[in-house]
Amino acid sequence: MTDAQKVHTAAMLAIGDELLSGRTKDRNIAHLASVLTLAGLDLREVRIVPDVEEEIVAALDALRTRYDFVFTSGGIGPTHDDITADAIGRAFGLPVEPHPEAMQLLAAYYESRSLPFTDARRRMTRTPRGASLIDNPVSKAPGFRIGNVFVMAGVPGIFTAMLDNILPTLPTGPVMLSTAIACPFGEGDIGGPLSEIQKRHPETAIGSYPKFDGQRYSTELVVRSRSEAARDAAAAEIQAMIEGLAES
Amino acid sequence: MTDAQKVHTAAMLAIGDELLSGRTKDRNIAHLASVLTLAGLDLREVRIVPDVEEEIVAALDALRTRYDFVFTSGGIGPTHDDITADAIGRAFGLPVEPHPEAMQLLAAYYESRSLPFTDARRRMTRTPRGASLIDNPVSKAPGFRIGNVFVMAGVPGIFTAMLDNILPTLPTGPVMLSTAIACPFGEGDIGGPLSEIQKRHPETAIGSYPKFDGQRYSTELVVRSRSEAARDAAAAEIQAMIEGLAES
Repeated sequence: MTDAQKVHTAAMLAIGDELLSGRTKDRNIAHLASVLTLAGLDLREVRIVPDVEEEIVAALDALRTRYDFVFTSGGIGPTHDDITADAIGRAFGLPVEPHPEAMQLLAAYYESRSLPFTDARRRMTRTPRGASLIDNPVSKAPGFRIGNVFVMAGVPGIFTAMLDNILPTLPTGPVMLSTAIACPFGEGDIGGPLSEIQKRHPETAIGSYPKFDGQRYSTELVVRSRSEAARDAAAAEIQAMIEGLAES
Repeated sequence: MTDAQKVHTAAMLAIGDELLSGRTKDRNIAHLASVLTLAGLDLREVRIVPDVEEEIVAALDALRTRYDFVFTSGGIGPTHDDITADAIGRAFGLPVEPHPEAMQLLAAYYESRSLPFTDARRRMTRTPRGASLIDNPVSKAPGFRIGNVFVMAGVPGIFTAMLDNILPTLPTGPVMLSTAIACPFGEGDIGGPLSEIQKRHPETAIGSYPKFDGQRYSTELVVRSRSEAARDAAAAEIQAMIEGLAES
């Protein structure tokens, strides 16, 4: 496998009490998942942890040592409950300090808006030493990258914009190709033969997603593979299975 | 603290490739979070893992040994990609076998619908030995409880119905009380004084959630506490802070 074919792995760490209390419904996980899939990276694990430094550090260490990249959301604002930068610094054993570029950026921004550059706003310039900034076109206060970890805001509009900015810097891999096949039979009818098809096509991952319209069951079958030929071969067998069942 | 006052902790394990590929947006995490908060249980961590047995086992073991209860979603259907029961059995070191009650239930159900009780459908009766069933009023195939782990379907309608069924069996605790205060100032303006208020009210957790209407920033401040008096005292100080800023 050449480097261009290497599939890079990724994990996400969503940070915030509000996600665990039900106050806020996360919208970033599904977005990151879709974007990484399109880019050919494999999102392998997601964790949601509260605004507790030890919890953030422990989860981050577990993920950053295991996967090629980690993407975090939340906790980089100006208030006391925004502790992500400190936690990430602690995980990496790095001091957390005002980032010179971020200081410049925000000082100019608040001056242009005739707003005081308060201590709270200065909090948003703090990063682990050596971090590089991630541009925030929405509200200026930047995210940052340190090592293999990308630290982004939790507000979905800002998370999305930051992700757009870092995406071109990530190595892409062979994209996961998928085909969805609508199947008019329920899982109980197709489970046996589908399992045999999966066994014959180990290069694919065949997923089965039940649907119920209130009257009867049907299934959406999804064949995923990085090989177009493998995907198409499995999909053809699934089509033949459905036709066989329809005739019987 | 008496037993009635004990706060029980919980974690969620959402299982499924489709959540990590972006194909499916999870809807169960936020629902579980809201329901547990209302019941007075603390959801402390969420993990999402793929349909890979070792991953499910590792995450389940990490969560079930640390928290009072674990709630899982996904992977209990009749197809080859539904491997949750096996993974949970392996985590507990228990054999996984057809559950007699589930066999009876599903045999009768499929007979009543004149559908064959296929091997695939029989898969849905498999639980770790000693599990008790969780009723599924939507599509019959049950979830199950083993030890401190509740194993439920991923389809949101079924997850919700199963959760409704187990909720009365869970110990409730003192409910987390919260108040939301609309604040017309941005986080950068209130971050300093708000941090002082948080320090003076350690029995509360004060969250700050920025809003941006396209023109200007405002904030929603949320005070959470299991003590009504503590919550109200912190909320009163926040109100006074806002009034002070409005006059200045």
